[in-house]
Amino acid sequence: MVTNVALSSATATEPALLALDWGSTGLRAFLLDARGHQRASRSASLGASAMNGQADSYVAALTQVAGDWLQTWPTLPVVACGMVGAKHGWREAPYVPCPADAHALAAQAIALQLDGGQTLHIIPGLRHQAPACTPDVMRGEETQLVGAMQLHPQLADAACVIMPGTHSKWAQLGAGQVRDFHTQMTGELFALLRQHSVLGRLMPPTRVDTPSAADEAGFLAGVAAAQAQGEQGLPRQLFAVRTLGLMEQLPLDSLEDYLSGLLIGHELRAGLAWRDAGGCTHAPLALIGEPALCQRYRLALEQFKVTAPLLLGNTAPEGLWSLALTAGWAAAPA
Amino acid sequence: MVTNVALSSATATEPALLALDWGSTGLRAFLLDARGHQRASRSASLGASAMNGQADSYVAALTQVAGDWLQTWPTLPVVACGMVGAKHGWREAPYVPCPADAHALAAQAIALQLDGGQTLHIIPGLRHQAPACTPDVMRGEETQLVGAMQLHPQLADAACVIMPGTHSKWAQLGAGQVRDFHTQMTGELFALLRQHSVLGRLMPPTRVDTPSAADEAGFLAGVAAAQAQGEQGLPRQLFAVRTLGLMEQLPLDSLEDYLSGLLIGHELRAGLAWRDAGGCTHAPLALIGEPALCQRYRLALEQFKVTAPLLLGNTAPEGLWSLALTAGWAAAPA
Repeated sequence: MVTNVALSSATATEPALLALDWGSTGLRAFLLDARGHQRASRSASLGASAMNGQADSYVAALTQVAGDWLQTWPTLPVVACGMVGAKHGWREAPYVPCPADAHALAAQAIALQLDGGQTLHIIPGLRHQAPACTPDVMRGEETQLVGAMQLHPQLADAACVIMPGTHSKWAQLGAGQVRDFHTQMTGELFALLRQHSVLGRLMPPTRVDTPSAADEAGFLAGVAAAQAQGEQGLPRQLFAVRTLGLMEQLPLDSLEDYLSGLLIGHELRAGLAWRDAGGCTHAPLALIGEPALCQRYRLALEQFKVTAPLLLGNTAPEGLWSLALTAGWAAAPA
Repeated sequence: MVTNVALSSATATEPALLALDWGSTGLRAFLLDARGHQRASRSASLGASAMNGQADSYVAALTQVAGDWLQTWPTLPVVACGMVGAKHGWREAPYVPCPADAHALAAQAIALQLDGGQTLHIIPGLRHQAPACTPDVMRGEETQLVGAMQLHPQLADAACVIMPGTHSKWAQLGAGQVRDFHTQMTGELFALLRQHSVLGRLMPPTRVDTPSAADEAGFLAGVAAAQAQGEQGLPRQLFAVRTLGLMEQLPLDSLEDYLSGLLIGHELRAGLAWRDAGGCTHAPLALIGEPALCQRYRLALEQFKVTAPLLLGNTAPEGLWSLALTAGWAAAPA
């Protein structure tokens, strides 16, 4: 099913770019005007992981979501980021080494001819390998980071950006570049422990109603435990989630939020130390992602005395627009 | 199915005790002579978690495994440890506060009359709650610790004991007591990540052949990563298992052992710091548990410069014998 958001002026002026945020689980298409503003957007659960690496499937998905746009504007430039450019995606856009800026990303995009005659430009991901450090990769987030710098130019000077999720990304920005980044498996660990571990067995079914104040208390208790006793190590503090429930020191209702706080607290503990080691302690901090999850991180950050982070939604459209201008695939009005 | 190990002299002399190691997943029964030596042993997959808290099920399981022994020796004392005494076990033997010694455990055992006329004594677990610390519990391991002190009296003076497993237990012993302990969820985390996470997807099916030298190298690389870069935090180092595989810095064959090493390394990092804070740095260190797993820990401990730990198998029979003597349920020859 394609979700369609059409603004009234969607077709009033010639669009300047079709921007595709094409991740593992979904495809989001944005029709942008010559100022980079959204005229219409559509989304569908047609992510790269459903395509089995088949070019035909990608063509069909793009046609389903944006075929009419491509027919109406046969010279419309198209630019995409995300897993669509992975090794097992539509066409591989090999990782660019970090540090990198928008110019490096745009220059190393790969071009693919569509049947309708348009060129699809796929933005590469970033690869990071510091000496004596484990390697890391991102694909899609690099474009969100470019978008964040486009929206808030002060971030380009120096910033720390957190993109919470299944695999949370942390990035340090400076001089317009992504200088350094790493990934933490926080969201996936939470899901695994909630669904499959001995900890989940004590927890009542996940609530669908609005989180209450009690949940926030449980969440903050978990953050505080990570902050104050994190050196006990996660494997020990995880088992304590069980004993806190068994010993009735935490209501069973709060265990899920406590676990969430504990894991996010461990992420912040390690991530902020990495930020400080990178000299970004006093640089602005931004959160990019799903609003409810970013709120959770904001709350946890307060406990670490990091206040007033910049909260951003999905900045991929701005990033794709900025990269298209940089490369000259689209042109802003003179 | 009951597995039966009968020594030739099993019924030659009157047995002195029927000792039951009755955990979540299995029941092991030991027929001990008046010196505490095993005359016969039997085991079956009739653990507490299969009993659904039903007394009838426990009676049936005991009858299946040791009914003939109870019939032959109707005055035989019976003593049990493990989840059989949990809240949802056969009969609850409430936790004894730590620190505790064999006298405290024996004194707070609960007695249950069996239909054949024998008394079943159930050893309580230990409960630990230091101020400003999360609570913790053990049930079954306290008896193994008593057994270790019985077998190696020098451990009673001062020792650190690791009992690796799904939920690894660490204990500090001193003056014949269990002074302090905690639990780490290492084994469960490994199983979750191996079976359900993005990390498992890169790993070939688990080998059943003898581990090769290459596996040991992968394991030790994981231990080293935890030791040298553990402050990066587990959620980050876990994601790196994926990138090390994707970037071909580790063979896919080695990822499983690397993950095992990383998790055990984090356990040792936190556990040894806890041992040192407890003043046990120079006390002997012992490993109790499944031999192959203890070998893995021994290898990892070497990397932490902790050499020549004492390797012990299941010390529950010795612990049950020692507790039965302490309580006077069984008598050693004069």
